[in-house]
Amino acid sequence: MSRQPITPEDGKLYEFTPTLEPAVTVDSGESLTVETLDSLEGAIRSDSDRLESIPDEVNAATGPIAVEGAEPGDVLAVDIEAIRLVEDAGRVVTVDGFGLLDGHDDIEAPRSRMTPVDGDAGTITFGDIDVAIDPCIGTIGVATRDDEPGYSTLVPHDHGGNLDTTDITAGNTVYFPVFQPGGLLAMGDCKAAMADGEMCGTGSEIATEIDLTVEVIEQPDFTLERPLVETADAWKPLASAETLEEACELANRDAIALLRNEHDLSGTEAYMLSSLVGGLEISQVVDPLVTVRNAVPKAHCGGPFQ
Amino acid sequence: MSRQPITPEDGKLYEFTPTLEPAVTVDSGESLTVETLDSLEGAIRSDSDRLESIPDEVNAATGPIAVEGAEPGDVLAVDIEAIRLVEDAGRVVTVDGFGLLDGHDDIEAPRSRMTPVDGDAGTITFGDIDVAIDPCIGTIGVATRDDEPGYSTLVPHDHGGNLDTTDITAGNTVYFPVFQPGGLLAMGDCKAAMADGEMCGTGSEIATEIDLTVEVIEQPDFTLERPLVETADAWKPLASAETLEEACELANRDAIALLRNEHDLSGTEAYMLSSLVGGLEISQVVDPLVTVRNAVPKAHCGGPFQ
Repeated sequence: MSRQPITPEDGKLYEFTPTLEPAVTVDSGESLTVETLDSLEGAIRSDSDRLESIPDEVNAATGPIAVEGAEPGDVLAVDIEAIRLVEDAGRVVTVDGFGLLDGHDDIEAPRSRMTPVDGDAGTITFGDIDVAIDPCIGTIGVATRDDEPGYSTLVPHDHGGNLDTTDITAGNTVYFPVFQPGGLLAMGDCKAAMADGEMCGTGSEIATEIDLTVEVIEQPDFTLERPLVETADAWKPLASAETLEEACELANRDAIALLRNEHDLSGTEAYMLSSLVGGLEISQVVDPLVTVRNAVPKAHCGGPFQ
Repeated sequence: MSRQPITPEDGKLYEFTPTLEPAVTVDSGESLTVETLDSLEGAIRSDSDRLESIPDEVNAATGPIAVEGAEPGDVLAVDIEAIRLVEDAGRVVTVDGFGLLDGHDDIEAPRSRMTPVDGDAGTITFGDIDVAIDPCIGTIGVATRDDEPGYSTLVPHDHGGNLDTTDITAGNTVYFPVFQPGGLLAMGDCKAAMADGEMCGTGSEIATEIDLTVEVIEQPDFTLERPLVETADAWKPLASAETLEEACELANRDAIALLRNEHDLSGTEAYMLSSLVGGLEISQVVDPLVTVRNAVPKAHCGGPFQ
């Protein structure tokens, strides 16, 4: 089956809300190629371009893509098969008022650095330093709950959004709760490379083409509260909150739910087991809400949708 | 050269202070075998034993070990060669008032669970679940700065202490700043297995024998502010603070210092590079101060003591 292309011209959004109009509608099981803009939409094209503030519209997410038959209570599985860079350079920026070390000595903002792509070498260059290309999707999510006001694409929450998670990459599958008919998936804000934490506020922001397959899991017994990433060796709930401490609590509760779904354990026992295997990981510490994941090794969890 | 054994009978401490009396003195380059007690010193020997509160004396650290010639401004390198379990079971516990989900629904405290060791299988068992043995040292550190009051072995800080870091394990090297003559190294509180985060407040706490070699690095040009772990593929500064946010800032500043020590980069440029490679990791979120590390891949950092 050929892949259906979906481009920003088909549709793009800057806010995940409960009432999104589909840009396109696809079948469950369909394979797509989604084109994404760089998060700053070309505003930074040289080291001398500067971003004086975070734009009102940032992290354009291509979509929304309605998936035929998806209904609230279902889960939308997004299997990421490939992420290809389609620009000859990404960019890293600092912006005043943003980033982990904003205002610290020696940290200047706004500053920009282009990171040219050497496709043959599989690297981007930061000055004279070669950095391995390892793309991830920064912003990916679905329409929000009825009782929520909507979240800009700068913010992560239970619908996904600006999760900035290195594990949202080729070879992995991301699962989202379906809150609205069709699910209404959108994505953008890809990076050529990013560190866990995204400390300065960006990775190497770059336009991409993403090959993926979407599939509806109908009314699973397991209640998915938030996004969940499946990697080669672990299941990782993704929790976003005001503080890292709160996000850790949510992610740990989700990990406990995964363990209890599979093993005959009390809450306390699953909590103890979660303190022995896998563990907490940092996705990003800079978006207005921060994101943490809790890895549950596949050795101890076959997954919630079997 | 045979290994010098050092046991809790030689000495153990419950507080890292500026004025520790050495239990033993060894030469730089000497290989040791350090015996450690379980962190609760045998208080929990069955599932029905309960820990009503954190003992005043917990995480007994064998030592302190003075290293001949170590002086303030030096760095003490501790190369961990092996950690052997010397009990037939570890234990996981919850304690009221302690742990990430303390007070949450479904989380009971105090509770205890013994985790028997199956040495042939290389596992501990948690109920009917096999968990791979993967030991780490929970508490390891040196005498504190002159201007500090001392820290109990329940607390991590710039001297080390209760770092509860899975990377402090066989095959890795931990570097500590030397604040006092002799350095005065002590360690204990080992785990048969532990998740990043140590969410319930413990791993599988167990007595061990640790093979290690200590070496003094005299007055390196690089100023080490806090513990640093060298793994097979990364350098990881370990920062402890009141909140995860503060710990992330410290660990990121340390990562920037490592990058700038090696590359001709401004602070801002190193900050940007730190947002592209490696990244923030969680050590533990439960000790009175929390601990975060920032991995700097060896691909980008040969290390500060070359």
